[in-house]
Amino acid sequence: MIPLLHIDTSAVLPFLKASTFSQWEEKALQALQKLEQGTGKGSDFLGWMHLPSAVQPKLFQQIEDIRRDWERDIELVVVIGIGGSYLGSKAIIEALSHPFGHLLPKKGPQIVFAGQNIEEDYISSLMEAMERASTACVVISKSGTTTEPAIAFRLVKQHLYERYGAEEAKRRIVAITDPEKGALRKMATNQGYRTFSIPHDVGGRYSVFTPVGLLPIALAGIRIEELMQGAAAMEEITAEESPKNPAVQYAVARNALYAEEKKIELLVTYHPGLFFLTEWWKQLFGESEGKEHKGLFPAGVSFTTDLHSMGQYIQDGERHVFETVLTIEKPVGKATIPHTEQDDDGLNYLAGKRIDYCNKMAAFGTRLAHIDGGVPNISLQIPRLTPFYLGALLYFFQKSCGISGYVLGVNPFDQEGVEAYKKNMFALLNKPGFEAQGDLLRKRL
Amino acid sequence: MIPLLHIDTSAVLPFLKASTFSQWEEKALQALQKLEQGTGKGSDFLGWMHLPSAVQPKLFQQIEDIRRDWERDIELVVVIGIGGSYLGSKAIIEALSHPFGHLLPKKGPQIVFAGQNIEEDYISSLMEAMERASTACVVISKSGTTTEPAIAFRLVKQHLYERYGAEEAKRRIVAITDPEKGALRKMATNQGYRTFSIPHDVGGRYSVFTPVGLLPIALAGIRIEELMQGAAAMEEITAEESPKNPAVQYAVARNALYAEEKKIELLVTYHPGLFFLTEWWKQLFGESEGKEHKGLFPAGVSFTTDLHSMGQYIQDGERHVFETVLTIEKPVGKATIPHTEQDDDGLNYLAGKRIDYCNKMAAFGTRLAHIDGGVPNISLQIPRLTPFYLGALLYFFQKSCGISGYVLGVNPFDQEGVEAYKKNMFALLNKPGFEAQGDLLRKRL
Repeated sequence: MIPLLHIDTSAVLPFLKASTFSQWEEKALQALQKLEQGTGKGSDFLGWMHLPSAVQPKLFQQIEDIRRDWERDIELVVVIGIGGSYLGSKAIIEALSHPFGHLLPKKGPQIVFAGQNIEEDYISSLMEAMERASTACVVISKSGTTTEPAIAFRLVKQHLYERYGAEEAKRRIVAITDPEKGALRKMATNQGYRTFSIPHDVGGRYSVFTPVGLLPIALAGIRIEELMQGAAAMEEITAEESPKNPAVQYAVARNALYAEEKKIELLVTYHPGLFFLTEWWKQLFGESEGKEHKGLFPAGVSFTTDLHSMGQYIQDGERHVFETVLTIEKPVGKATIPHTEQDDDGLNYLAGKRIDYCNKMAAFGTRLAHIDGGVPNISLQIPRLTPFYLGALLYFFQKSCGISGYVLGVNPFDQEGVEAYKKNMFALLNKPGFEAQGDLLRKRL
Repeated sequence: MIPLLHIDTSAVLPFLKASTFSQWEEKALQALQKLEQGTGKGSDFLGWMHLPSAVQPKLFQQIEDIRRDWERDIELVVVIGIGGSYLGSKAIIEALSHPFGHLLPKKGPQIVFAGQNIEEDYISSLMEAMERASTACVVISKSGTTTEPAIAFRLVKQHLYERYGAEEAKRRIVAITDPEKGALRKMATNQGYRTFSIPHDVGGRYSVFTPVGLLPIALAGIRIEELMQGAAAMEEITAEESPKNPAVQYAVARNALYAEEKKIELLVTYHPGLFFLTEWWKQLFGESEGKEHKGLFPAGVSFTTDLHSMGQYIQDGERHVFETVLTIEKPVGKATIPHTEQDDDGLNYLAGKRIDYCNKMAAFGTRLAHIDGGVPNISLQIPRLTPFYLGALLYFFQKSCGISGYVLGVNPFDQEGVEAYKKNMFALLNKPGFEAQGDLLRKRL
């Protein structure tokens, strides 16, 4: 079996000027030092770095208590959150869930997400579904006033109080929020909800190993201890000040390619369950690096599906793309291609082969075809799709993102650009304090 | 109510050199002429242009017959297809389905997709689900030998024959394939399956208005007559040789921006049900234009969700992105923000407002914030999320894509780049006839 994570950047070198690679390595090692010593930009947001190794058994117990309490009678858990308060748990739950689970007998409560949009059809459909199921809610927001989750929580809370009464509603709501301040913390204290804290020094997109990620993941029946053990193992590996450190290698390769005018990084997966892992990765890198008018544009494809949609572009379109390809050494399920008498589809040459074997040959063949077409390739492989290896993978990406942002010269831990739309939205919604700006904006529409 | 589709390209002009716009208009009108007269590249693949106006009531009847036959006893329909044989129907079905339908009492058979990947966990999970449901299958492939759908069909077919016997299995399989030749046509004739034909002159990504799209959409309970009526209305509008033709306007705006070094087009939606419409659009434009080392890179975001992931990059990252924003005038569902006594989340300023109102203000605010940040904006709006308006929208994109590809100077109706990975995959799988190439490739791995 391969180790925790295997990285191969050899298919990047032919696309670089020979002299440059070692310079990027040097920069990445300096960036790693800054991270480890807390001397870089945004160093008040480095709490994520040691979460896996510092986790307390008490946290697992608190989460397990809620899981057991709800397991008795809860059919539907609505997890309310947006951005980093949603994508990490969604990524892990999707990756480890049965893709056709809704067609099988139910095991434990169903986890659904809300407050990640303000779309009326979505929320009214959710309200309809809630009427038919015994419902509980996890609300995740540092402040409690972010518009999308606050609106969803107001509606879900109203439903729970009206249906179950205040005392029982209290048992059905858990809040994950700031340790001391903010609207949601205050509300939770006043109403007596069970709560978890989001550490001050951990930003949204780095929060999957806090209760923000861990509680929803555990409620889905996934072993969070193993997730954290995998992350802790990767924490150790990626602390090493060496060019062999996989987080360093990845940061080197992508920055070197960006300098060669490769402007788009495509995360390629060969497993449909990794769709939301790709979405999580897009937030992690896009929000960390997309500033000061620079940064790789992060995009995702799921192969071989998207070889029949985006494949043409990648093979022959504008040459500004490189691929980071994530594969899994062994599948969980098992399916073999059967032999047929007639061979009317001409597939007997594959009879007896595992489906995964075909998927792997597709991945190898695509790698070579795309390299030949001018698309550099970074390859990542993990051994299995398990909580342990996913924990390691997510930590790997977080660490590499911190390094990579420093190499690029930005602060990978802020996101000031996210405020621009919010200010305009508040103004147009006539939020108290924003009225004057609203009149100016309405004139422009 | 707004007309069929409203397009606004006014927020493109400030990003262009003043002199260039009319040149692009002229080119687009010439391209439209080529399309209408069949004098451009790939003109043997223009069958899609008049599908909506030329559709025969007999086709609707044939589809309805199958829907009624299966409605009696089929719980699960597995639709097998990849690329254009999957994305069109998936896009329409997702857009018009209840997002939490799996939590409500069942109405009609459940539609699931297979053969759009060769991932072992996915297919083995599907086999498990099939064991528990009365299953039927629609298999879609022009040739019948495309690897992904052929593998899935071999497995599903084996299941149906073993479980139901040959005679009953025959009733549970419908093939959509070439009118005369190919492995699947031959198999269907030999076995006696019901079939539909894919016209010779319609390529995969332009096939949603053939039985490829129509049968699965109808099986999901969606009114395909209305879908085709909407498409036919748009067929008429977009035939007009005028700069006001919306398909011309869209082709002009995106080519003009591409010439100004905007290399990425982001399709922005404000409705989570439009995710697969975005995927369909990515195939349509990516596969039509991504050739000869040129073409806009098509990517998608779902707002406001992704304002909390990709929003930072769009606002402040590298300035090579423009947005095409699709909104819907009125939602289907209804949800209003309730008033609360305490106002502990500070949302009472929105009490009594529709959720859709907030979504609209978010869209307006984001439009202005992104324009101010240097992101050009094309706005599209449709009146409602109904089969009629979706039919119009999809036809609009197809027509505009044909025009746009001609303006770019490529053949928008071929996809030779898709073959490169297939050849390598066949070689690595030791497909008869590809063995020599396989040895060469294995040496490179």
